[in-house]
Amino acid sequence: MRFETGLIEDPQRGRVGIVRLRVRYAETDRMGIVYNAHYLTWFEVGRTEFMRALGTPYRVIEERGYNLPMVEAHLRIRQPLRYDDLLVVLTWLGRLRSRVVEFRYEICDQAERVVATGSTTHASVESSSGKTVVVPDWLRDLLLG
Amino acid sequence: MRFETGLIEDPQRGRVGIVRLRVRYAETDRMGIVYNAHYLTWFEVGRTEFMRALGTPYRVIEERGYNLPMVEAHLRIRQPLRYDDLLVVLTWLGRLRSRVVEFRYEICDQAERVVATGSTTHASVESSSGKTVVVPDWLRDLLLG
Amino acid sequence: MRFETGLIEDPQRGRVGIVRLRVRYAETDRMGIVYNAHYLTWFEVGRTEFMRALGTPYRVIEERGYNLPMVEAHLRIRQPLRYDDLLVVLTWLGRLRSRVVEFRYEICDQAERVVATGSTTHASVESSSGKTVVVPDWLRDLLLG
Amino acid sequence: MRFETGLIEDPQRGRVGIVRLRVRYAETDRMGIVYNAHYLTWFEVGRTEFMRALGTPYRVIEERGYNLPMVEAHLRIRQPLRYDDLLVVLTWLGRLRSRVVEFRYEICDQAERVVATGSTTHASVESSSGKTVVVPDWLRDLLLG
Repeated sequence: MRFETGLIEDPQRGRVGIVRLRVRYAETDRMGIVYNAHYLTWFEVGRTEFMRALGTPYRVIEERGYNLPMVEAHLRIRQPLRYDDLLVVLTWLGRLRSRVVEFRYEICDQAERVVATGSTTHASVESSSGKTVVVPDWLRDLLLG
Repeated sequence: MRFETGLIEDPQRGRVGIVRLRVRYAETDRMGIVYNAHYLTWFEVGRTEFMRALGTPYRVIEERGYNLPMVEAHLRIRQPLRYDDLLVVLTWLGRLRSRVVEFRYEICDQAERVVATGSTTHASVESSSGKTVVVPDWLRDLLLG
Repeated sequence: MRFETGLIEDPQRGRVGIVRLRVRYAETDRMGIVYNAHYLTWFEVGRTEFMRALGTPYRVIEERGYNLPMVEAHLRIRQPLRYDDLLVVLTWLGRLRSRVVEFRYEICDQAERVVATGSTTHASVESSSGKTVVVPDWLRDLLLG
Repeated sequence: MRFETGLIEDPQRGRVGIVRLRVRYAETDRMGIVYNAHYLTWFEVGRTEFMRALGTPYRVIEERGYNLPMVEAHLRIRQPLRYDDLLVVLTWLGRLRSRVVEFRYEICDQAERVVATGSTTHASVESSSGKTVVVPDWLRDLLLG
């Protein structure tokens, strides 16, 4: 595959995080294809590696007292993936609002075809109070680059 | 909880399948809440019990040579759920098109508050050929009642 | 199935917790059978319902400041289970030592055949310190009945 | 970490497959540590990469008409792992009997400490008949090297 793990610059999408995964047997179902829920987990891996590539791992964001729980997700599967397939998750920033962050995703197979797309929206939550808060400046700066 | 497992008739939604679940420890994450991907699995349980209540378990649909792989999903989480919480999944038919079936979902907590909503869209696939086909009449009749 | 959810008294095993589950599509793999890791999750459900039946849900044990993280597991699968199969998890107390609790399990299918067996061992951990501690008296009393 | 993905030769264990993973958020539970069942999935990834490194991916073994469903597993967790931790799975051949293959595992953290160990036993099954059969010669040769 052309894609290397890391960060690329895309004219439309801005910075795009890239991570390669391989389908686990555990992720297949009796249809012989990847069970749908695992795409959301792959989106999480995409987000995690995107933020690491931006310079602040999501783990550190939590250590600083913030959580980004998912409040909305959209997923579209165009072509199924199968056991042992290599895939690439591309992740980039969607809309950034006052208290909410959106990420967008594209999943490509080994032939570089787009096999799934999606987006997830996350609330900015202060972990001590559990309350939704304005995205802190340092996180906004990290995401906007 | 007011809801019993089974089928109710709703003026807006038509027949609504109801199933009760309890949050497993395995379904929580280190935020202490249910990890997002598991909502898609609960939607699957909702679908399974909805079709059983309509009279033909999804297992039988597969035995008759058809699969309904998910091609699209939308999920909205309003309030987090936690370990050992009881929840109810309500499932009903959304749009039924020529080759595609949509289901809609509502997840309620023990206080009967709606804590999550969503929809999933499934292609009608002939398992022998793997091709998308028109939803067979008997399945259309089952779903439309 | 003969088994009802709840607690039975067994001459050899003492009190045995019983819970009924149904195999989810998400739990199958491309062999068409249940993927092995899910048995450990079912053991967790067995434990949870066993302790609830004994009178103190595991959630309450955690609220009182203790965790029982798994430190060892043994699993034996005799016959595979498939999508939509009903199953029963039987759970009882194995060895109770100073700082360690063992649970034992039997999984039966709809024909009441034993299809899997296992055991899990859990450390008694004080959640505030994260340290292994002697199983508190009230928990010992709960388990020994 | 010292370990690279691939195959090393160990005086006691023979050929040892090595694969690096990172803990996903999805794999944590509300104790803040990795939920136990995921170790079995990591063992699967270890097995998959071990067999690929030996020269025949497990996918190809299935394409040749054989399955290796797990019939037994043993797991011991010495130290918990947490979100975003890097880990290494070491996999090697345990006992090879007429109709059964055993793999052994060691999981190390970033400091190269052994944090978990285990073994899994797999039946040799002919997929067309579903029957247990003698491990075919080519698979025996692959495993024994």
